[in-house]
Amino acid sequence: MKPQKIGSKQWVIPGGHIPFGTNGKEPEFTSHDRLSILNTSGKEADIELTIYYQDRDPDGPYPICVEAQRMKEVRFNDLIDPLAIPLDTPYACVLHSSVPVVVQFSRQDTRQSANAIATTMAFPVA
Amino acid sequence: MKPQKIGSKQWVIPGGHIPFGTNGKEPEFTSHDRLSILNTSGKEADIELTIYYQDRDPDGPYPICVEAQRMKEVRFNDLIDPLAIPLDTPYACVLHSSVPVVVQFSRQDTRQSANAIATTMAFPVA
Amino acid sequence: MKPQKIGSKQWVIPGGHIPFGTNGKEPEFTSHDRLSILNTSGKEADIELTIYYQDRDPDGPYPICVEAQRMKEVRFNDLIDPLAIPLDTPYACVLHSSVPVVVQFSRQDTRQSANAIATTMAFPVA
Amino acid sequence: MKPQKIGSKQWVIPGGHIPFGTNGKEPEFTSHDRLSILNTSGKEADIELTIYYQDRDPDGPYPICVEAQRMKEVRFNDLIDPLAIPLDTPYACVLHSSVPVVVQFSRQDTRQSANAIATTMAFPVA
Repeated sequence: MKPQKIGSKQWVIPGGHIPFGTNGKEPEFTSHDRLSILNTSGKEADIELTIYYQDRDPDGPYPICVEAQRMKEVRFNDLIDPLAIPLDTPYACVLHSSVPVVVQFSRQDTRQSANAIATTMAFPVA
Repeated sequence: MKPQKIGSKQWVIPGGHIPFGTNGKEPEFTSHDRLSILNTSGKEADIELTIYYQDRDPDGPYPICVEAQRMKEVRFNDLIDPLAIPLDTPYACVLHSSVPVVVQFSRQDTRQSANAIATTMAFPVA
Repeated sequence: MKPQKIGSKQWVIPGGHIPFGTNGKEPEFTSHDRLSILNTSGKEADIELTIYYQDRDPDGPYPICVEAQRMKEVRFNDLIDPLAIPLDTPYACVLHSSVPVVVQFSRQDTRQSANAIATTMAFPVA
Repeated sequence: MKPQKIGSKQWVIPGGHIPFGTNGKEPEFTSHDRLSILNTSGKEADIELTIYYQDRDPDGPYPICVEAQRMKEVRFNDLIDPLAIPLDTPYACVLHSSVPVVVQFSRQDTRQSANAIATTMAFPVA
């Protein structure tokens, strides 16, 4: 398929919350929140995340780069610069991209004996 | 990131239903439904929830306040004024906000031996 | 809240598939697919479902009524007229309503030792 | 219901990732990602999938046909031509259809002792 611009340059995930505690081998069973970002365009996507909290100022930007015609999976657990996202803490995420992308949010929760999963498209800002 | 208005002033969750029964330590494993609300604007969001039922008149308003540039996680289990939302009972929720916000709905169900989770963006009213 | 028209008159769920088999007490742990429908208007919603299959003609209409200012939870397992929806069989659902409604789709799967759940907004037809 | 055109001709799933490992009898408990596609139109839908990866060029097209007034459930695990989609590997999917369709994405994860499920509507390209 030829490169094409699909999606939006801004996306929102209000419901971040990395589960605290893991059952099973790491890293595949580590409890985590993650983003999946698709860039179908012919240009690299320069992406910045801003993280919002309940009781303090937003943190960021967290830079992410997704090459042309590639997707990228990013665990929020792995975002440490400028500041690690604390576990078991509600947060929200706003994503800005230099080119249109499509974004999905997923969670894996292995705090109890068997894993639980959830997923939703992020909210695209028109 | 500078304050900006993102989202909608009205959101709908048709599929509320707090699971009845919990396995595991409270409050982290308590079965619950919850809202995650992000307010990226520079103004406080004055929010009101209305709760609809299968067989009686709607209840509300349930007031919620989300400060400028903050997110908030709210468990439906904790909404008690004007009236606690009954467990194991289907309900729906309409949210009105004084400024645009983005809203995600999630459920944790620990009625059986390991937890189950689900999430979806709420439905934005244009 | 005063009655108001929110949502769409037509909604689609492509991914129906009632899990076959149940662990736990019925009916609360019965594996099922379900709809949650919210009618915030001042008029009764006369709703018809059409069910699509992989290898035979669509079935329907399945009539559902949701009173003014009420929500309704409907298990697909309970739809038997004109024809019960078979278990463990892929199906899709198109919903038509006489007034705007909002629709969410959920699944409970208890085929194994602990339940799994999933939910998503249905797809609104403009 | 008479045939009608519902949905979009292009859909995106950024967050593909087939879980590696299965507990329980196959094929019903096999860990998998799947698409559910509804074609309510009066014409056959000729569909092509393109699969994107993190570190190599996109693969495709993967052809799928959905007859008029039918739905189809497709496991990504079963897509082998032109190339099987590797397990435990992040991927994204863009779907093109000759007629409007509606698309839902689901995952079943049975890597641990009880299954986990997740579902979301795919992202429709306007």
